[in-house]
Parts: sequence; structure tokens; C-alpha cells
Amino acid sequence: MKIEKVFASWKQLIDSALVKYLAPRSATYNTKIYDSMLYAIMPGGKRIRPILLLAAAKACGLGEKDALPAACAIELAHSYSLVHDDLPGMDNAPERRGKPTVHKKFGDGMAVLAGDALLTKAFELMALRGQKQKIKPADALEAVKLFSSAIGEKGMIGGQVADTFYGHKNKARPEKEKILRYIHTHKTGDLIEASVLLGGVIAGAPVSKLTALKSYGRKIGLAFQIVDDLFDLEEDAGKLTYPNFYGQENSRKKAARLIDEAKNDLRLFGKNSQLLSAIAEYVVDRAN
Amino acid sequence: MKIEKVFASWKQLIDSALVKYLAPRSATYNTKIYDSMLYAIMPGGKRIRPILLLAAAKACGLGEKDALPAACAIELAHSYSLVHDDLPGMDNAPERRGKPTVHKKFGDGMAVLAGDALLTKAFELMALRGQKQKIKPADALEAVKLFSSAIGEKGMIGGQVADTFYGHKNKARPEKEKILRYIHTHKTGDLIEASVLLGGVIAGAPVSKLTALKSYGRKIGLAFQIVDDLFDLEEDAGKLTYPNFYGQENSRKKAARLIDEAKNDLRLFGKNSQLLSAIAEYVVDRAN
Repeated sequence: MKIEKVFASWKQLIDSALVKYLAPRSATYNTKIYDSMLYAIMPGGKRIRPILLLAAAKACGLGEKDALPAACAIELAHSYSLVHDDLPGMDNAPERRGKPTVHKKFGDGMAVLAGDALLTKAFELMALRGQKQKIKPADALEAVKLFSSAIGEKGMIGGQVADTFYGHKNKARPEKEKILRYIHTHKTGDLIEASVLLGGVIAGAPVSKLTALKSYGRKIGLAFQIVDDLFDLEEDAGKLTYPNFYGQENSRKKAARLIDEAKNDLRLFGKNSQLLSAIAEYVVDRAN
Repeated sequence: MKIEKVFASWKQLIDSALVKYLAPRSATYNTKIYDSMLYAIMPGGKRIRPILLLAAAKACGLGEKDALPAACAIELAHSYSLVHDDLPGMDNAPERRGKPTVHKKFGDGMAVLAGDALLTKAFELMALRGQKQKIKPADALEAVKLFSSAIGEKGMIGGQVADTFYGHKNKARPEKEKILRYIHTHKTGDLIEASVLLGGVIAGAPVSKLTALKSYGRKIGLAFQIVDDLFDLEEDAGKLTYPNFYGQENSRKKAARLIDEAKNDLRLFGKNSQLLSAIAEYVVDRAN
């Protein structure tokens, strides 16, 4: 109960920070870019990625006010990827979260630019040092590098390329399995893993804790994707997803096992692991 | 003569670094992203922006090997903006530098992702500290922030929005003049200014030098755009450009005056201003 209150207040904190960072204070002939960026990020979803970052930072001793810019950076990167993935040249999606996608509302060109601007702003925020400048320059710099790597051509973009532009239809089963693992690891997994890891990085956590966070993040990310695929069974018929490949029952078991293992990774944090443990449980609860 | 040799060797240095940074060492199912990124940046143009960064860094005492990642970051940002601006939803350009544009060659979706990946990689490179780690973490971090701001919604993207999505046809002349200035300042000016300024920032230069570099960069950027518009008079008929608005003769004079003023900004650097002065002259020479 207390934990749910923490998450609700963090979601509010994140939402108002996002609006503040994207306020068109000096807009003149570029007003449309603010309109389209705000449209893309509000009202938004559960903000699970930035909440993961805040929870990881807290577990390593950095408060939410100081971790907030980095948390917002993560959400902007997630949001930009959705705007671009929805474009006609990719998923060609008319709606997202019950409203027209950005390109349906503002046109294809503006949707490309809105995504570009969200991504660019994400790096600006990742380079900030928090409300009280508690983040060390070297740690913020490391965060920028890891962030770029997680969402770049070897990370999230690589996963999107494999999912959308690498034909898997005529491949043999072992090859399909590899492709599936590649897509899961990179398309959604890398950003979720980075959300957790970067919370520790900006908090200046030691390697032992960073290693544990990375491992927890990787497992949560994979479980999250499997659960998502279980929800979307009908629309994903024929797509290369976990339940379509391994079956529903196996997928549920796999997600539950990953969550258990992820919680084990947190032992090192003692009672500071409470929030991260609760998030892990939240992921598996969605599946049941 | 000696200066031309420096520029030629720097162009080579930049070209081979770009290829190195984008080498598909671990490509598997994402090979297409490397193909499209490399296609976008090679063989490329004169590399004037990264050369400006190297020259500014050198004038402030940082050698080209250490400034090279930041210089490449600038070129990747320029390159990403071209790939996205060429898309059907924007300029819908079939060719660039005599070959099919990225979306004509790889499809619209891959062109969006190639641009995204170039932009993301640009930030990774801007966060590096040079071959011998000579760049201070705080300076590299400041460079990331300024870079983001120069190419974001208030900078380069803002200029592109104003140019492509803000109607100017039915506006009165004073309003058109303001729009023209906005587009020039942001669409091309901000990245050129940043190229020069960031060279000083990563070199750890004092505020007096940064202010001079910024002022020089702003003037060079505007002159560069005016000269470009003078070259493109025929294809730009009816577009809101400097020569179309002020006339060719006035535009030539304005460019020459800007270059003189830019060279004046360099006095503080004494004989270390040689390369930057030469670049300023190169810009105006193209106009005559």
C-alpha cells in the first residue's frame, strides 16, 4: 500500500517534470514542435521505465529529485521510439493509447521531427546533474555514453531493425529462436536494463551494485516483454513473439522464473531493495 | 598552401574515424542499419563543420586526435539532419550529392532509423574524452548539453520546423524578414556556431575565448548560408532565402562584411587564429 503511494507520487513527479522540460517558453515559428512533442508524451502510460530509474537510484542513495532529469530522459527516449515506430514506413499505426498517432495528427514530417526532438532533449536531460548538482560530472558522462549505447544501433534501434526489416518467415526454427532472442534483448530489453543500471550509475554506485542492477534489469526487461506478448496474443497472430514460439504456458512460467531470479539479484541491497522488488512483482502480477 | 594541406589531412582523419566508429563489428540481424548509416556519411562533403571544431580546439590548445570524436559527432548530427530532411514527409528529395537519398535506397522506414542511429551515435561520441583522455569530464558534459541545445527544438530542429511547416507565403514583408532570420539562425547557423564553440569547450578554454568563438561561429554560419543560397538561386526561386529577399548584390556584400567581422573576433587568439581565419576566407571565396 505504501509502495503504491510512492509509485503514484513518482508518476506525478515525472509527469510534471516532463511538461516543464517541454514547455514552449521561447516558441515563435517552431510552436508546432512543442505541440507535437507534448502530444507524444502526455498523458502517456505507466511511466514504468523512469520509475525503475528512480527506484534504482534510491536503492543506491540518490534521491528522486536529483534522479528526475535522467528518469525523464529515459521516458523521452521511449516516447521517441514509439513515435518513429508508428510511422507509415514502419508499423504504420493509426492509433496509440486510444488516440491518433503523432503522424496521423501532425503529419509524417512533423512526426519525424517530433521524435528527433524528443531524442535530442533526452540527451540534454541525461547530462544534467540533478536539482542539487549531486551527480558527479564523470558519472553523468558515463550515463550519457551507456544511454546512447542502449538505444543506438547495437541496442534499441538494432532490435527495431531486426523486428521490422529482417525477414524471419522462411527461416528454420533454431534461426527463428535466435532472431526472437535478439529482438527481445534489444528492442525492449536494452532500454529497460539501462533504466535500472543508469539509476545506479548517476548515484555513483560501486561495480558490485551496478552488476546486480544490470542483471535485475535484464531479467525484468525480458519478463516485461513476455507479459506484453501474452496480452497481445490476438493482434500478434503470426508474429515472432515468445508465446507464439514457445506456447502460452511456457511463457507464463518463464516470466515468473525471471522475476524470481531478478528479485534474487537484489539481495545485496538489503531492505533498500523494497521498491525494486515491488516493481518486479508488479510485472509478473500483470501476467496472472 | 600549408593550410590547405592541414585541411586535406584533417578531412582524411575525419573520414577514417567516421568509418571506424560505424564499423559493424558485431552486426547480426541489424546489418542494414550499418549499411544505411555508412551510405549516409560516405563519401560525404567537405566536412567543414568537423574541420571548424578541430580548428577551434587547436586554437585553444587541444590537438586534433583528442578533438576528433567531438568533430565526428558534429558531422553525424549534420548527416542525420540531411537524411531526415530528405524524407517524403519533408523535402521529398530523390538525390543528394549525385546519388539516391537514403530513403530512395533503403526505404522510408530504414531512413528514419538510420537518421536516429546517426543522431544517437553523435551523442556517444560527444561524450568521449579523446584519445588520451585529455578532455575533462565536466567539459565533455557541458559539450553534450550545448550540442543538444544547438540541434534540438530551439535550435536546428526549430529552424527546420519554421522552414518546412510554418507558412510564410501570405505574410507581410517585416514578418517574412523575421521568419527568414529565424530559419537562418537556427536551421544551419546553430550547428555551425556549435561546431566552433564546442571546440573551445572541450579544450577547456576560458569564457573570453568561448565568447569570441561563439561570435565568430555565428557570423561564419550566417555567411555560409547566404553563400549557399547564392549558389542555389535557380532551384530556390520563390523560396524564402537571403538573395530572394534582399537581392544578390546586397547578399554578397553582407556575406563579405560578416567574414570581416568574424576575423576580427579572432584577434584574441593571436597567431593561433590562422586556421580559423583561413576557413572564414574560404567561405567568402566561394561567393566570388
